Amino acid sequence: MKHKETTLTKTLAIILNYLDGNLEPDSNVVNYQTANDLKEKLDLTLPDEGVALEALIPIVESYLNYSVRTGSTQFFNLLFSGSSIPGIIAEMVTSATNTTMHTYDVAPVATLMEIELIKKLTSLVGFKEAEGLMVTGGSNANLIGMLCGRHQVLPEAKLQGLGNNQLVAFVSDQAHYSYLKAANLLGIGIKNLVKVKSGVDGKMIPAALEAAIQQSLSEEKTPFFVGATAGTTVLGAFDPLPTLAEITRKYGLWLHVDAAWGGPVLFSEKHQHLLAGSELVDSFTWDGHKLMGVPLICSAILVKQKGLLSEACSGGGTDYLFHDDENDLYNLGTKSLQCGRRVDALKLWLCWKYYGKKGYDQLVNHLFDLANYATEYIRRCDNLELIAEPQFLNICFRYIPKDEPLDATGLDQLNLDIRNRLFHSGTAFVNYAHYQGLVMIRLILANPELQKTDLETFFHNLLNAGKLVESVKG
Amino acid sequence: MKHKETTLTKTLAIILNYLDGNLEPDSNVVNYQTANDLKEKLDLTLPDEGVALEALIPIVESYLNYSVRTGSTQFFNLLFSGSSIPGIIAEMVTSATNTTMHTYDVAPVATLMEIELIKKLTSLVGFKEAEGLMVTGGSNANLIGMLCGRHQVLPEAKLQGLGNNQLVAFVSDQAHYSYLKAANLLGIGIKNLVKVKSGVDGKMIPAALEAAIQQSLSEEKTPFFVGATAGTTVLGAFDPLPTLAEITRKYGLWLHVDAAWGGPVLFSEKHQHLLAGSELVDSFTWDGHKLMGVPLICSAILVKQKGLLSEACSGGGTDYLFHDDENDLYNLGTKSLQCGRRVDALKLWLCWKYYGKKGYDQLVNHLFDLANYATEYIRRCDNLELIAEPQFLNICFRYIPKDEPLDATGLDQLNLDIRNRLFHSGTAFVNYAHYQGLVMIRLILANPELQKTDLETFFHNLLNAGKLVESVKG
Repeated sequence: MKHKETTLTKTLAIILNYLDGNLEPDSNVVNYQTANDLKEKLDLTLPDEGVALEALIPIVESYLNYSVRTGSTQFFNLLFSGSSIPGIIAEMVTSATNTTMHTYDVAPVATLMEIELIKKLTSLVGFKEAEGLMVTGGSNANLIGMLCGRHQVLPEAKLQGLGNNQLVAFVSDQAHYSYLKAANLLGIGIKNLVKVKSGVDGKMIPAALEAAIQQSLSEEKTPFFVGATAGTTVLGAFDPLPTLAEITRKYGLWLHVDAAWGGPVLFSEKHQHLLAGSELVDSFTWDGHKLMGVPLICSAILVKQKGLLSEACSGGGTDYLFHDDENDLYNLGTKSLQCGRRVDALKLWLCWKYYGKKGYDQLVNHLFDLANYATEYIRRCDNLELIAEPQFLNICFRYIPKDEPLDATGLDQLNLDIRNRLFHSGTAFVNYAHYQGLVMIRLILANPELQKTDLETFFHNLLNAGKLVESVKG
Repeated sequence: MKHKETTLTKTLAIILNYLDGNLEPDSNVVNYQTANDLKEKLDLTLPDEGVALEALIPIVESYLNYSVRTGSTQFFNLLFSGSSIPGIIAEMVTSATNTTMHTYDVAPVATLMEIELIKKLTSLVGFKEAEGLMVTGGSNANLIGMLCGRHQVLPEAKLQGLGNNQLVAFVSDQAHYSYLKAANLLGIGIKNLVKVKSGVDGKMIPAALEAAIQQSLSEEKTPFFVGATAGTTVLGAFDPLPTLAEITRKYGLWLHVDAAWGGPVLFSEKHQHLLAGSELVDSFTWDGHKLMGVPLICSAILVKQKGLLSEACSGGGTDYLFHDDENDLYNLGTKSLQCGRRVDALKLWLCWKYYGKKGYDQLVNHLFDLANYATEYIRRCDNLELIAEPQFLNICFRYIPKDEPLDATGLDQLNLDIRNRLFHSGTAFVNYAHYQGLVMIRLILANPELQKTDLETFFHNLLNAGKLVESVKG
C-alpha cells in the first residue's frame, strides 16, 4: 500500500514537471529518433517475471523523454494540442473508478453527465428532440452517421442485408478519409462514395453535388447520403450547409456533417456563422478532443431524429446486460455499437465546467485572432507565400527562396526539407500536405496557450531553416 | 501554475483514499440511487461561466461517492474488476502526453510498445507471421474479424460494395451480441447470422454448425465466417476450436474467435488447454481490460495472415497524414478503422511489465481456484443450486428456499429480489441472466484481490438476503 502511494505520488511529480516543460522556451517539441534508433535505446521487451512497482518510474521517465510534446507551443501538427488540467484530473478519476457505460447501474454519474453533454451539444447544433452518444472517434461518428442514413433509406438491410441495392453516398473531394472506410465497412463500396468537386476555397460545389446525384439516379442507383464537412483537414473549409440541405431535402437524402474540427465555432458568437444551417443536417460529428482541451478520445454522434440511432445501431436482444427496470431510459448501451464503453463523459464534462461556454467562446476567438496574425505575417514576408485564403485555424503556406527561383519539384523538396529540419531538430512540429499539385506547410492553431510571440518564434525558426536548407543546396 | 499542482495533488490524495476504500470491509460496493434521485442530488448542468480549478474537487468527490466500486471484492457483476496501479499510472501519463497512434512520428514509444504487445499476443495465440492492432473494444475486434472474413471471400466488396451476394456467418447461440451488430454494420444482415445450437455446456455443437453451413449452401448462399467464442458471457464456455477449424477448412470459411473473456487462460500452463487450437483460427479478439488489470478500453484484433488487416481496413490514400518515409512500417494508422486513436498500449505494456507473464499465470490460476471454492460452497449449501457445471470463472447458480417450495415464476422472482436487495443495499453487485428459461445469478470472478473469505462474505450475505426476502413474501 505504501509503495502504491509513493509510486503514484512520484508519477504525478514527474508529470507536473513534464507539463511545466511544455511552456519552457528551451524545451524541444520532440527528441526525435528513428524507429530503429529508438528500439536500440529502449528495452521494450516484455518479461516473464514481473517487476516492482517502483521499477515502472524510470520507464515512465523514458516514455516522457521520447514523447512528442503535443502541448508545446511549437506543436502545430495536428487538429489538437496537449490536454488541459481538468482533462488530466478526469482521466485519473476515470481510470481509478474504471467502469463501462453500457448501463446506468454501473456508471450512474457518468451516464447522467453524458446525457447532459448530449443535451448541450444538440442544443448548440440547433436540434430539438435529438439523441446522441459518445463514440470512439470522429471516424466512428461519421460511420454511424452513414449507418443512420443507410438505415433510413433501407431499414430492411439491418435484418436482410443490403441485397442488390446500389447505394451511393456523396462527399467533397476534401472530405476526411473516414468516409471511405465507412463506405467499405457498410458494404456500400468505396466506388459508390462519389467525391464531389470542391472550389478553390475547398468547399463542396452544390451544383456539382446535384449533378452527381442526378447521374447516380440516371444509372438507376440509390443515392442516400451526403457527408458534408465543417472544417476540412487541409484547408479548414466549411461546406455550405443551407444549400446542401435544400438539395438533400429535394432528393430525400440523409445529410451528415463531419464537424469534428469545426464544431466548436458554435461556441463563438463571432464565428458561428461558419456553421450556419447546422440545425438542418440529420446527423453531426462532434469531437471534444480537438479544440476543447479534452484528452483523446472524446467524440459524439448527434442525430436529429430521436430513436433512429438506437434503431440503426442496436444488435437485437441480449438480456444478460440490459434488464428492463426503472433506469432503463438511462441505459445508453442500447444505442451503442460498443459493449464495454469507456467513460469519456467525465473529461468533457469537467473541461466544460472549468472553461464554461464563455471560456470556449473566448478560446475560439483567440485562436481566430492568432490565425489572422499568422496570415498577415505570411503576407508581409517576402519568403513566404499563402497557398489558400485561411477560413479557419488552418494556415496553408510555403517558403519561397528570394534570390534564386526554383522549379516546382525543387520548391516542393525545399519545403519538405524545411519541415523535416524543424521536426527532426525538435524546433517545431508542423505538418505538410499536398494541395493542387504542390507541397505546402499546414500550420494548425489549436493550443489554448498559444500567443503571438510563439508564432513569431515559429516563423523565425522556419525562415532560418529555409535559409540553411537553401545554402546547403546552393 | 500553483493551482494546477495543488489541484492535481489533492485529486491524487482523494483517489488514493478511494482506492483504499475498495478493500475495506465496511465500504459499500455502491451508494445506490435511482437516476431520478441522483439527478436531484447532483447539479450536473453545465454553466456559461467557467469555474476555478479548485472548484472541480468537490465534483470529483461526489463522482466518487456515487460511483460503483468495481474494485471492491464484492463486485462480481461484469467481466472485469477495478483497475491496477500500473494501469492508473499509465492513464495519468497517457492523458498528460495526449497524442494519437496514427503515425510513428507523433507516438514513437507507444507505437513500439504496441508492436511489442502484438508480437507477444500473437505468439501466445500461436500465430507466426501475424499482424494485429489495438482497437476500440472487443465488439470492435469481432467486427474487424468479420470484416477480414468478408474481405477474404469477397475482396471486390471493398470497392464495389456487396452486390447481390448473400453472405452467411455462423456463431453459437451463446455468442456475444456484438456479432449481431457486426452483421448489421457490414451489410450482411442479422438474419444471415445463423445462431448454431450449443450443448448444455454452452459450447457450439460442431455437427449443428456443419448442418447449418450445408443448409446455406443448398439455398445458394455464400457461407464465409464462423465466429467462435472462448469464454461465453453467461456460462464461460469455450467452443471446440480444433473441430471447428476442420469444418471451416473443409468449406473455406474464415474462423474467428472472440476470446475477449477467455484469452488470458493462455498465460496459464494449467488452463491453456481450454484454448487448444487457438493457432488454427484466422483472427482472434483479445481484451486486456478484462483479466489483466488494465483500465477500459484495451482490446486487440490479431490476424494470422499478414497484410490482410491493412487491406481489409484501409480506406485508401490520404497523404496529409501518411507520408512515405523511413518510419513508414511503423505507421499503425494504415491498419486502422480509426484516424485519431488513443494510446492504449502504454497501460497494457506497463501492466504486463509489472505482473510479468508469470504473474498473469498465477492470477489466472488463483481465480480458477476461487471458482472451484465457490462451486464447492454452492454444492455444499442446501439453499443454493448450481445451474451449470462451471468451466471458467463464471459461476451460475440460484437460491432455493429450503422449506416452502416455489413454482418456477416464484423462484425466478425470488432470485431477482435477492440480487436486487444485495445491489441496492450496496452489499454486493452481482448480475443475473436468463438461461434455459430460468433466472440465475451469475457470479464472475475477475478481481485479483479476491480471497476465499470474500466469497464466504458474499454467500453469507446472499443467504441472509434470501431468508429476508422469503420472510417478507411469506
